[in-house]
Amino acid sequence: MKEQRVTVTGLVATTPRHLVTQTGLPITSFRLASSLERWNDAEGRWETGETNWFTITSYKTLAVNTAMSISKGDRILLAGIMRIRDWDNGTTTGTSVEIEADTIGHDLTLGTSVFTRTSSPSSSD
Amino acid sequence: MKEQRVTVTGLVATTPRHLVTQTGLPITSFRLASSLERWNDAEGRWETGETNWFTITSYKTLAVNTAMSISKGDRILLAGIMRIRDWDNGTTTGTSVEIEADTIGHDLTLGTSVFTRTSSPSSSD
Amino acid sequence: MKEQRVTVTGLVATTPRHLVTQTGLPITSFRLASSLERWNDAEGRWETGETNWFTITSYKTLAVNTAMSISKGDRILLAGIMRIRDWDNGTTTGTSVEIEADTIGHDLTLGTSVFTRTSSPSSSD
Amino acid sequence: MKEQRVTVTGLVATTPRHLVTQTGLPITSFRLASSLERWNDAEGRWETGETNWFTITSYKTLAVNTAMSISKGDRILLAGIMRIRDWDNGTTTGTSVEIEADTIGHDLTLGTSVFTRTSSPSSSD
Repeated sequence: MKEQRVTVTGLVATTPRHLVTQTGLPITSFRLASSLERWNDAEGRWETGETNWFTITSYKTLAVNTAMSISKGDRILLAGIMRIRDWDNGTTTGTSVEIEADTIGHDLTLGTSVFTRTSSPSSSD
Repeated sequence: MKEQRVTVTGLVATTPRHLVTQTGLPITSFRLASSLERWNDAEGRWETGETNWFTITSYKTLAVNTAMSISKGDRILLAGIMRIRDWDNGTTTGTSVEIEADTIGHDLTLGTSVFTRTSSPSSSD
Repeated sequence: MKEQRVTVTGLVATTPRHLVTQTGLPITSFRLASSLERWNDAEGRWETGETNWFTITSYKTLAVNTAMSISKGDRILLAGIMRIRDWDNGTTTGTSVEIEADTIGHDLTLGTSVFTRTSSPSSSD
Repeated sequence: MKEQRVTVTGLVATTPRHLVTQTGLPITSFRLASSLERWNDAEGRWETGETNWFTITSYKTLAVNTAMSISKGDRILLAGIMRIRDWDNGTTTGTSVEIEADTIGHDLTLGTSVFTRTSSPSSSD
């Protein structure tokens, strides 16, 4: 499998952090809480399940537009490549599940959105 | 496999048609053109590939918000359940590929969006 | 979206056809019937839904191993890139939904399998 | 999103552990190492990327057939529901990424398999 693709919906749980690297690459990242339901076969109904937490990162035009459009508390959907990373900051260690998004949008299940086009498909990346 | 889920990005190719059934169910549907790239292994680069055409349908709150937010020409992403249907209108026959979307959003790869929340997660459906 | 990926389970509905092109490329293809269930929200249960039909194609090592392993009537799972194609054979026209598989396996939900390795990960592609 | 579905290919990294609960539920679980490639846009080629580690669990008929068919070192594909879990064993804490598989098969990209059917679709779960 070349890439591990996933599609996720959820709540933007932190204020998106936007920065531009010294080489001029725009990056936007935030934490996403994705609350799932779980099919209870015995009782024949969906019930509240766990929450999956992801670190979402976007680059280039998507990073710029995400920083201008997405705020903490928004409900979104996105698709991208998932990587499971072990980290060690010297004091503690942990595992984070990261998604490099190649498309992000506000989830119209929960509201309306007004869209302004900023680039053509060919120039976008 | 209980359901055939897919995630798609593309161009809204027809003006979304919104209606409410006699039983009060809101439905919004439109055609989506999803242009794909194709990895050329011999030349080691992505090249323009085919366009997949889908009929997208949404129901309830998502149908209402989609009708208020999405216009012909917009770039969107969505996820939902795919069904391949043979149809026969008496004169000609054909096959359509339908997706019942459970989440839709404007694709921030190509622009910015301003979101207005209209419902809470629990009341949405 | 660079590629439209899907994952499908289903029944091999035709005897797989295996050929090698003049340039030496092995190709195996067959039809797959994927019967789905559908969540009935009103009655709170899964019910029998439609059957999605796909044309599955594989290339190179996967084509060779598929031809040696898969028979009509087998239950399988696979993942790959989906393309919706309109065809015209001069007499009639139609639409087919094709998946170029990059991985295929017997579905262990319905039986057991004995595996024999034929190639290393690095040489297979 | 009701469920977080993913499709994964990879190497079975531990001997599958099979048990039957006191209530008679068969469970099989193992660790899967999924090595990914990464598209290097600058150099225009795929390169070796990270390895994602998953804990795979299956139940009922799939658990029985998996225990009879899958060994450490096998290459497989599977699809299922992903959950990201924080754990605490009293001494240390960590995060594991679990997939409850609803279909598993040997990956024919790397070998051949001989299949023996053990149950009908309707009786499988």
